[in-house]
Amino acid sequence: MADRRHNARDVFPPTGTDLNTKSWLTEAPLRMLMNNLHPDVAENPHELVVYGGIGRAARTWEDFDRIVASLKSLEDDETLLVQSGKPVGVFKTHKDAPRVLIANSNLVPNWANWDHFHELDKKGLAMYGQMTAGSWIYIGTQGIVQGTYETFMEAGRQHYDGNLKGRWILTGGLGGMGGAQPLAAVMAGACCLAVECDEKSADFRLRTKYVDEKTHSLDEALEMIGRWTKAGEAKSVALIGNAADIFPELVKRGVKPDIVTDQTSAHDPVNGYLPQGWTVAEWRGKAETDPKAVEKAARASMKVHVQAMVDFWNAGVPTLDYGNNIRQVAMEEGLENAFAFPGFVPAYIRPLFCRGIGPFRWCALSGDPEDIYKTDAKVKELIPDDAHLHNWLDMARERISFQGLPARICWVGLGQRHRLGLAFNEMVRTGELKAPIVIGRDHLDSGSVASPNRETEAMKDGSDAVSDWPLLNALLNTASGATWVSLHHGGGVGMGFSQHSGMVICCDGTEDADRRIGRVLWNDPATGVMRHADAGYEIALNCAKEQGLNLPGILGR
Amino acid sequence: MADRRHNARDVFPPTGTDLNTKSWLTEAPLRMLMNNLHPDVAENPHELVVYGGIGRAARTWEDFDRIVASLKSLEDDETLLVQSGKPVGVFKTHKDAPRVLIANSNLVPNWANWDHFHELDKKGLAMYGQMTAGSWIYIGTQGIVQGTYETFMEAGRQHYDGNLKGRWILTGGLGGMGGAQPLAAVMAGACCLAVECDEKSADFRLRTKYVDEKTHSLDEALEMIGRWTKAGEAKSVALIGNAADIFPELVKRGVKPDIVTDQTSAHDPVNGYLPQGWTVAEWRGKAETDPKAVEKAARASMKVHVQAMVDFWNAGVPTLDYGNNIRQVAMEEGLENAFAFPGFVPAYIRPLFCRGIGPFRWCALSGDPEDIYKTDAKVKELIPDDAHLHNWLDMARERISFQGLPARICWVGLGQRHRLGLAFNEMVRTGELKAPIVIGRDHLDSGSVASPNRETEAMKDGSDAVSDWPLLNALLNTASGATWVSLHHGGGVGMGFSQHSGMVICCDGTEDADRRIGRVLWNDPATGVMRHADAGYEIALNCAKEQGLNLPGILGR
Ligand SMILES: NC(=O)c1ccc[n+]([C@@H]2O[C@H](COP(=O)([O-])OP(=O)(O)OC[C@H]3O[C@@H](n4cnc5c(N)ncnc54)[C@H](O)[C@@H]3O)[C@@H](O)[C@H]2O)c1
Ligand SMILES: NC(=O)c1ccc[n+]([C@@H]2O[C@H](COP(=O)([O-])OP(=O)(O)OC[C@H]3O[C@@H](n4cnc5c(N)ncnc54)[C@H](O)[C@@H]3O)[C@@H](O)[C@H]2O)c1
Repeated sequence: MADRRHNARDVFPPTGTDLNTKSWLTEAPLRMLMNNLHPDVAENPHELVVYGGIGRAARTWEDFDRIVASLKSLEDDETLLVQSGKPVGVFKTHKDAPRVLIANSNLVPNWANWDHFHELDKKGLAMYGQMTAGSWIYIGTQGIVQGTYETFMEAGRQHYDGNLKGRWILTGGLGGMGGAQPLAAVMAGACCLAVECDEKSADFRLRTKYVDEKTHSLDEALEMIGRWTKAGEAKSVALIGNAADIFPELVKRGVKPDIVTDQTSAHDPVNGYLPQGWTVAEWRGKAETDPKAVEKAARASMKVHVQAMVDFWNAGVPTLDYGNNIRQVAMEEGLENAFAFPGFVPAYIRPLFCRGIGPFRWCALSGDPEDIYKTDAKVKELIPDDAHLHNWLDMARERISFQGLPARICWVGLGQRHRLGLAFNEMVRTGELKAPIVIGRDHLDSGSVASPNRETEAMKDGSDAVSDWPLLNALLNTASGATWVSLHHGGGVGMGFSQHSGMVICCDGTEDADRRIGRVLWNDPATGVMRHADAGYEIALNCAKEQGLNLPGILGR
Repeated sequence: MADRRHNARDVFPPTGTDLNTKSWLTEAPLRMLMNNLHPDVAENPHELVVYGGIGRAARTWEDFDRIVASLKSLEDDETLLVQSGKPVGVFKTHKDAPRVLIANSNLVPNWANWDHFHELDKKGLAMYGQMTAGSWIYIGTQGIVQGTYETFMEAGRQHYDGNLKGRWILTGGLGGMGGAQPLAAVMAGACCLAVECDEKSADFRLRTKYVDEKTHSLDEALEMIGRWTKAGEAKSVALIGNAADIFPELVKRGVKPDIVTDQTSAHDPVNGYLPQGWTVAEWRGKAETDPKAVEKAARASMKVHVQAMVDFWNAGVPTLDYGNNIRQVAMEEGLENAFAFPGFVPAYIRPLFCRGIGPFRWCALSGDPEDIYKTDAKVKELIPDDAHLHNWLDMARERISFQGLPARICWVGLGQRHRLGLAFNEMVRTGELKAPIVIGRDHLDSGSVASPNRETEAMKDGSDAVSDWPLLNALLNTASGATWVSLHHGGGVGMGFSQHSGMVICCDGTEDADRRIGRVLWNDPATGVMRHADAGYEIALNCAKEQGLNLPGILGR
């Protein structure tokens, strides 16, 4: 497989207003697929890896080329099917149907584990789609900066009276997602010490100014943190080291951070987590030649790592799992109280999900940053009274450079999303924007994921593992006319632990698009409100009533 | 739950031409839901159980009533979502979207087992949908007769030039499913000797004319078989005895059947299989008082039974496992070459699946048998050269009584299904039929199931467990405009072992329906051809080329 996956060429999405396909509805997935592999966006584009361990945009380079060719010839009443990153069929549908339907990494439950996945992967039969990698709506680290920022802000509200000045956050991992942590912390007013084993990852964050300093010495890192917190300065440092060594060492020294979390890729014990005592080079090599040995050593180290997090928690430090499934592994390795500290969703995000609020995002197909700035202004105009939202938009513009096609994310919910979508479509229609906009979201959203160790951890009614919901979400988005829809397995927390769906809709300025946007950007967050109302959350039940949702078995009408 | 699930009332679907809803597209699911619970169709309708253990049509009676109420008020641009038998939401879509979208029994893989299901079920959070129970397209026992008939016919094609006249089939078991064997064999033109240990089971099949004769004597049974095969007469006999005695005795005598199979309930070694040397009464008693002893003795007998089947196989007799797991038990008992003979899907059904051929079925919403007889005639008219198909239609009309709404099943593939659908729609339009027809299929079909112990056993490329395929099938049927679409987990082989999708389309006589039928009844079987072509089956690759499918990553265009 290696050769079919490796290619030295660089992919850049087309920009501007000339079509490479027969319409904007096929140009949009074409540009967004290529944007996922843009050298400034993807973690390892030559291997087709976008982010999150081995989350890929296409199964092989040959498949990538065939997807592109298929999109170029696709008619506006045809639909392309993509199966684990391979374009398997083009079928006649109709103009209100999605142009692309995607299913990635799905396995019959009894075989839904990494061993079987890797066995298939070796045969060329599989691809790990993560969440937005295989569904072509990754926009670089801005998405995660916003999510992490919201999480840290909420933690600050709950534990430090809304003021993180002079506080510091300990974490691990500066990869595709984790790299957002120091910047999000600083935006939230806190300092950050991030342990990263791969110097290249740290250097990349330094170059893009997501982290302020780098060191190989724990003592030096602690000295910086001490100095900054004392001065009330919000700054961040990357410490090159192994989190499984550093976290316990801090516990041993009695050092107490103000918040502890982790974003190593623990969900993938072969490719995502450096075992203690190994060099990065040894690890990468052995992951190819002896994956079993890597997995065993990595899992043992995760247990040590989580033990330290439990120790911080027991010492009164707000500690949270940031969705990498590390508690699960530690528990399987025999750490009984691995789940002592909570996941970030039940702790901080669920109240937002109850109102359909989640990681709404959009991208300017023109490639012109001005298009995004104009939409930023439109959001402020349409949602005038939300200081928090306005503050985010200002900071994002100031501190986050665009990667690949210019994009914006902001967390908005049911009742707002379709208003923004219709307004953007109008701006495309009138020529205010240079080219169409695509609107999508993470699979980590209100109605689109079942993941008992993360997004649906500790649901009020115990329905954590029921995955009817994301499947219904995907079917409904397909029925509502999204431009592409995806169903994935194993994103975020790894094989066996999640099922989730994605959707993207293209605002091409047409009146057909108005109708589709009105349905999709209402129905999609509404399924999230429905799912949480069914589980008995008051906020969701009230939101459903306020918004006039028709939920027969839930609201009893 | 029991009370919310039990109700003494009998449900009968409305018949005739008066609507109870706002259109035929909502009347159709209403009638088919009710038909699934018709006293002549369902196994335990008062508990909402349709078939297959606890396969239900709705979660509770309250949910049933709410589904009915929702369908009555549903508009033709709205879609009802059903989550594990509960109507959870009504959303605005458009006229070419499905009217109902269903997800039943789906669980995140790591929790996808019977224990967790029962835990949720007790809390009122789950429903087992089986395949066609929760997706409202079960039509009674006609389905298993047809499936068995097709299996025997395909065996006849492969081994006897398509002519089973003068041939005979040896089998065991005349239970709920196995009882279809003698009738299916006779319909296929063969004689059948079925060994059944429980005289009551044999007597039931005699009464319903599924078997022709009964005897306690092997010599007499062989005399009958000899006489019938010589005369070219297709007849069947039930031999009261133990298959583990009779099969080896036949081997010893050098008797050579033309096909050998078995449908004792070997999958359940305590309650399903009579050990050698035991009476049925002893067996039933000990199954209660000393299940371990029964299991031990039954497993030992199965080894003897399978040894005889392997002997037949080695003697050149086509021998097949009919999905009761008896080879697995024999292997565990030390019979090394227990898997010498194949399972029925890889041996006989897969070549059909490769051409998109599967359990296509339709139902007359009028309730009038004449409507089905007219469609029978239409099928013969449109497919004039298929003697096999004509034979089935004649025999089915003659020997199988309708249960609930009149229905027909026949196995047809890509290229035929949409032609039949369009013709039926035309017959509705012209008034030749009294009311609309619905067309659906089992989830056990070419492109709609991933089930590594049954439908996708031993796939050529090892992709048995890849479930992207049924998910894409459901998404594409949704995008193509099926009237309702479903995604289930655990049908047939139980929790954790399968994922599958269903679809039903209503022929209401309109031109809109023509367009939808043309897409859905082409695309649906085409996904099956695609899935098998991707796995490398020549028949499927050739079929895809002949039918002009556009499969970029598979056919390389
Ligand atoms: N719930 C969420 O919303 C959410 C968001 C972001 C990320 N995550 C999860 O967080 C994890 C990280 O995501 P990512 O995209 O950044 O992954 P990634 O693979 O790009 O980055 C992981 C980083 O961790 C480093 N690392 C691995 N082992 C280490 C160790 N022992 N000590 C120190 N550093 C180590 C790697 O070198 C790499 O830079 C994933 O498991 C992901 O699923 C969850
Ligand atoms: N794969 C498929 O599509 C498929 C289809 C039908 C049946 N099956 C399998 O076939 C088996 C039978 O199904 P069923 O619904 O008819 O089960 P059932 O339990 O209703 O019937 C089994 C019959 O076998 C008889 N029997 C048991 N031990 C015997 C012995 N030693 N000798 C002779 N007769 C014996 C019993 O008396 C009973 O009548 C099951 O294992 C089922 O899973 C699979």
